[in-house]
Amino acid sequence: MRCDRLWTEARLATLADAAGLGIVEKGVVASRDGRILYAGPAADAPRFEAVETIACDGRWITPGLIDCHTHLVYGGDRAHEFELRLAGASYEEIARAGGGIASTMAATRGAAEDDLVATALPRLDALIAEGATTVEVKSGYGLSLDSELTMLRAARRLGVARPVRIETTLLGAHALPPEYRDNADGYVDLVCEQMIPAAAEAGLADAVDAFCEGIGFSPAQTERVLAAAVAAGLPVKLHAEQLSNLHGAALAARHGALSADHLEYLDADGIAAMATSGTVASLLPGAYYFVRETRLPPIDALRAAGVPIALATDSNPGTSPLTSLLLVLNMGATLFRLTVDECLAGITRNAAKALGLGDEIGTLEAGKSCDLAIWTVERPAELVYRMGFNPLHQRIWKGL
Amino acid sequence: MRCDRLWTEARLATLADAAGLGIVEKGVVASRDGRILYAGPAADAPRFEAVETIACDGRWITPGLIDCHTHLVYGGDRAHEFELRLAGASYEEIARAGGGIASTMAATRGAAEDDLVATALPRLDALIAEGATTVEVKSGYGLSLDSELTMLRAARRLGVARPVRIETTLLGAHALPPEYRDNADGYVDLVCEQMIPAAAEAGLADAVDAFCEGIGFSPAQTERVLAAAVAAGLPVKLHAEQLSNLHGAALAARHGALSADHLEYLDADGIAAMATSGTVASLLPGAYYFVRETRLPPIDALRAAGVPIALATDSNPGTSPLTSLLLVLNMGATLFRLTVDECLAGITRNAAKALGLGDEIGTLEAGKSCDLAIWTVERPAELVYRMGFNPLHQRIWKGL
Ligand SMILES: [Zn+2]
Ligand SMILES: [Zn+2]
Repeated sequence: MRCDRLWTEARLATLADAAGLGIVEKGVVASRDGRILYAGPAADAPRFEAVETIACDGRWITPGLIDCHTHLVYGGDRAHEFELRLAGASYEEIARAGGGIASTMAATRGAAEDDLVATALPRLDALIAEGATTVEVKSGYGLSLDSELTMLRAARRLGVARPVRIETTLLGAHALPPEYRDNADGYVDLVCEQMIPAAAEAGLADAVDAFCEGIGFSPAQTERVLAAAVAAGLPVKLHAEQLSNLHGAALAARHGALSADHLEYLDADGIAAMATSGTVASLLPGAYYFVRETRLPPIDALRAAGVPIALATDSNPGTSPLTSLLLVLNMGATLFRLTVDECLAGITRNAAKALGLGDEIGTLEAGKSCDLAIWTVERPAELVYRMGFNPLHQRIWKGL
Repeated sequence: MRCDRLWTEARLATLADAAGLGIVEKGVVASRDGRILYAGPAADAPRFEAVETIACDGRWITPGLIDCHTHLVYGGDRAHEFELRLAGASYEEIARAGGGIASTMAATRGAAEDDLVATALPRLDALIAEGATTVEVKSGYGLSLDSELTMLRAARRLGVARPVRIETTLLGAHALPPEYRDNADGYVDLVCEQMIPAAAEAGLADAVDAFCEGIGFSPAQTERVLAAAVAAGLPVKLHAEQLSNLHGAALAARHGALSADHLEYLDADGIAAMATSGTVASLLPGAYYFVRETRLPPIDALRAAGVPIALATDSNPGTSPLTSLLLVLNMGATLFRLTVDECLAGITRNAAKALGLGDEIGTLEAGKSCDLAIWTVERPAELVYRMGFNPLHQRIWKGL
């Protein structure tokens, strides 16, 4: 059988099984036209005639990594605020000094689209250097129609500037901009009546997200956003139960959400609703670590209910300035006590599901995009175990 | 004035002040014969005739980074043990499966010196890639005369294989090897009467360390090791107060220790003793994080007593498989609430002191080795704030 490229002498973690890593000790992967033609035991493989054959010397191949929750595009950073807080400044003093999300909004609004692309690229490059082949990017720091669309255009351009798949999410309902300080419902009108339709019509958003929280938007406001998204034909996801339990996950599940994210305060009803709707639990240990949260997401109950668990960086300037999926793996294990298999599924198979791309990416299976990460490790557990070490040998995106 | 290389248009964090970063907004650094000839304001600099001039475009220059506590040389790894534990295996089951430090000892004893060098180099390279110019490396997994000396020779060879300064530490008293299971004092005899003299005579050890702990060596045994080291003309340091308070730091201080390390259970007497002797507190947040310790070292009291605080990776296969000093910075701030200035001093000025090299490295001052890290950041706080992002532009070791 003809193929473009053939990777031989490899060990595979296909992630194709619903449980476990789908390990193949003597494996091969064949690609044609950017898709996986075969991934499995060498002994069962058809005889391939390959344009190029790559011997992997026993290295491990996993699916290309997927970061299913990031805020990678933004202006400025919050390093100085971080410094002030460590030096003892109160939140009030930092807010008076122009800190917090307001500072990121101001810097984002003040940045040209080109600047947003240029400053996001080094962060994207850090993810790519560790094997990321798909990265979700949210808007949410513009908080005006124009600026939110600019953020989404900048995100789309990242996928032109680099060989990586970018999935964009409109997060207009991230925070209340100062123009609407006393008119949250008016801002939700703007999100529902202008941002969502405009982003959908321009093809700029692959999904819609919101921040359902005491310091964000109420369940009633969130419901309006999710309903508007569904009406516009866009799938939804939700920042839910991060700081308190507003039953956002159940609300999201009722709208068929792809994922509910954070979830430290998720309760049994929310878990049951997610299990019923097939909503993925996207856990974000970087934010948990960075804000020194002590309440753990209900991992055992999620497991017991069979809710798929994804992991992501939540890369953002305020609560998770993190650009390493390998570190997410370690945090998932060390902080959340997820197993090695769960951690690896969390940034491959289940992250794909969280993006609605379970049929396209996330496992090594025939027909899917040939997105591979090839590792110089003796066993997949090393990817989770080490901290600050990158054993990536090669990254393949769409067969190249 | 003639110089070899001249870095211009730089911002400097010289770390030369006892407190603060020693910031110079418009700075230059000049090197001659591998040493710093000048580091300070451009306005105050002599007129240099340089063989090579490097414009830094406003980038920041810090001292080259120093990792003052690592166990970088070892055989095997403990990824599988990590995996088993996450899957629910008890410590007893892991010990029965050959896990724990015994497995690292067996793999280290079974490895040829060449293998120890080869497997340590990728870990060293990870540190170097983030700007490390000096790395301490301990023995302590051989636990026999021959194997400890082999580890030290392997460590020395790392400094030949790469442009980096390696400081070696004999840690024969790290754990009890099986041959001495019922004869700890006999093993301490071996350490004191054979290992220390042999390492000193061969010039293989720059210092001597021990593990003073219930699961390590008693204070009385530790004292014998430290005394033997001092008698052999070697400076000492100590793994102290990591899991319990055996008053090891005070014991170390009485022997003029360069540093006492870990220190989660350090008490006021220990702090006072360290302050008197000038012993550095080397804190190891990677181990704190990885073993999910909850007791913090007494940071405020160390500060109040004026004990210099260093930070290090503690890179080791069992409790801190960490090879990133940038991540150590973030953990120092996030987990230990050290300030940005304290974190940066911890892997430069104070790490140099912890190695007895305060006159040679650790700050940008005339006469010191010209070891520089040049960073593409807007402010030094970014080095501490980000996670999993390496903004190193260039690393200079001995002026090159
Ligand atoms: Zn988020
Ligand atoms: Zn140690």
